[in-house]
Amino acid sequence: MEIIKSVKEMQRWSDHCRKQGQTIVLVPTMGYLHEGHLSLMREGKRLGDKVIVSIFVNPAQFGPGEDLSTYPRDLKRDFHMAESAGVDIIFTPNEWDVYPKGFDTYIDQEKLTLHLCGLSRPGHFKGVMTVVTKLFHMVAPQIAIFGEKDYQQLTIIRRMVKDLNFDIEIKSGAIVREPDGLAMSSRNVKLSSEQRKSALALYLSLQQAQKQLLDGETRSEQLIAEATSLILSYPGTVIDYIHICDPDSLEDITTVDRPALMALAVKVGTVRLIDNKILTP
Amino acid sequence: MEIIKSVKEMQRWSDHCRKQGQTIVLVPTMGYLHEGHLSLMREGKRLGDKVIVSIFVNPAQFGPGEDLSTYPRDLKRDFHMAESAGVDIIFTPNEWDVYPKGFDTYIDQEKLTLHLCGLSRPGHFKGVMTVVTKLFHMVAPQIAIFGEKDYQQLTIIRRMVKDLNFDIEIKSGAIVREPDGLAMSSRNVKLSSEQRKSALALYLSLQQAQKQLLDGETRSEQLIAEATSLILSYPGTVIDYIHICDPDSLEDITTVDRPALMALAVKVGTVRLIDNKILTP
Repeated sequence: MEIIKSVKEMQRWSDHCRKQGQTIVLVPTMGYLHEGHLSLMREGKRLGDKVIVSIFVNPAQFGPGEDLSTYPRDLKRDFHMAESAGVDIIFTPNEWDVYPKGFDTYIDQEKLTLHLCGLSRPGHFKGVMTVVTKLFHMVAPQIAIFGEKDYQQLTIIRRMVKDLNFDIEIKSGAIVREPDGLAMSSRNVKLSSEQRKSALALYLSLQQAQKQLLDGETRSEQLIAEATSLILSYPGTVIDYIHICDPDSLEDITTVDRPALMALAVKVGTVRLIDNKILTP
Repeated sequence: MEIIKSVKEMQRWSDHCRKQGQTIVLVPTMGYLHEGHLSLMREGKRLGDKVIVSIFVNPAQFGPGEDLSTYPRDLKRDFHMAESAGVDIIFTPNEWDVYPKGFDTYIDQEKLTLHLCGLSRPGHFKGVMTVVTKLFHMVAPQIAIFGEKDYQQLTIIRRMVKDLNFDIEIKSGAIVREPDGLAMSSRNVKLSSEQRKSALALYLSLQQAQKQLLDGETRSEQLIAEATSLILSYPGTVIDYIHICDPDSLEDITTVDRPALMALAVKVGTVRLIDNKILTP
């Protein structure tokens, strides 16, 4: 496994691979890798000739007061984990190369960003789309893989790729969970052991909604009320949002008479966690 | 010369060329070609192996009340002219392929768009940056050439290419003028013979400013006042703006003690014309 820091070097490397007819797969990450990331890398190995993992904690997608400065980082650990997953290149550009002096260009959307995390984190997806576009231009992959835990991000990136005619296929990987059901997240390491117990409420509320739906409760309002009640019964939880919405448009739906996305964001102490599930009636 | 309409076909064609190690040059246009466009195509032939000319009248860069519906079009004439300039591919995507149903992604800048045409045409450069990004992804050129008549556009695109890490070299071509000095523009065909005489005022005001500068007048305010007076002495002219500004930041400068951009937009009847010149003290 090779480590590349320079944008120009990354571009030359990819150009060389593509000229040899190789398929490049990009797995963009913010590092502090976990089994969720590794599952995407292994899928990348299956799909292409070369797997590039980018590690860049993107300041543009953190709002004021969010956890940019405390976001967990451990590059040495990340390198070992990526190597064990068969990754070919770790790409770790510097912040001053990604956002040089005078930087002034951004990408945004007006519709899909009006829902879920787009409302609680204004500017977040603008930052995501901008950095993902930059990474696409730096790495020039034919395939890029994103995790389904960030469901709205995945939806927005699919839309962006289609709208901007990127010649890139977007693939997704299922949420990977801890044995008890908690969705893997780099932020989980920040939970105290008490908070770790409360964090399970996200998963349990999704499971409960699916069960209640199968028992005949199709009203989103009622399903959300029950989820709210379950989550708040755990100490230290503050609900940011719980929505049941159309899996494509992300618009709220009132009756779950077809597959619907249940998505939620909950703060456990200072740690903001998200999770989601497609509810199937 | 070949004509390609399909985005997918264009991408496959370019991918094939690049795999063979060829350099692709893109000259983006809105058609109704003139000698200015042809000079960019000939420069393209010199710089690369394949020259692609895109012809697409981009609705996203026209505001309400602007001349989208009356913008001159003549594809047959364009094909002949491009062929005579040695162009390899004319790429004419359909509007519904460029902006399909549900389209929602755009590119914008906050600083360079605050000046010159950015103020009189809100959203114009957002439309330009979005379509140019799309064309870059459709054609995948290593080099793209833009005319210097659209000076602010060129500046904004250079910034965008740098900011978004496009692996594309941006080249520019000097303004090509009619024998009397009028800058070539597809819109010139819309001028009546009376208006055609008034249209020369743009060029003459730039020449006058350069002469006055060499005669010792370095105050922007005074140079602009003289230009205003000259232009308004021609019938049917309405000045949109005249600015003397820094050629990189496009911010106004008060004293021309170094090379400065003089840029102006003038309506002659219903036809909005632009022109510019680097004033050199």
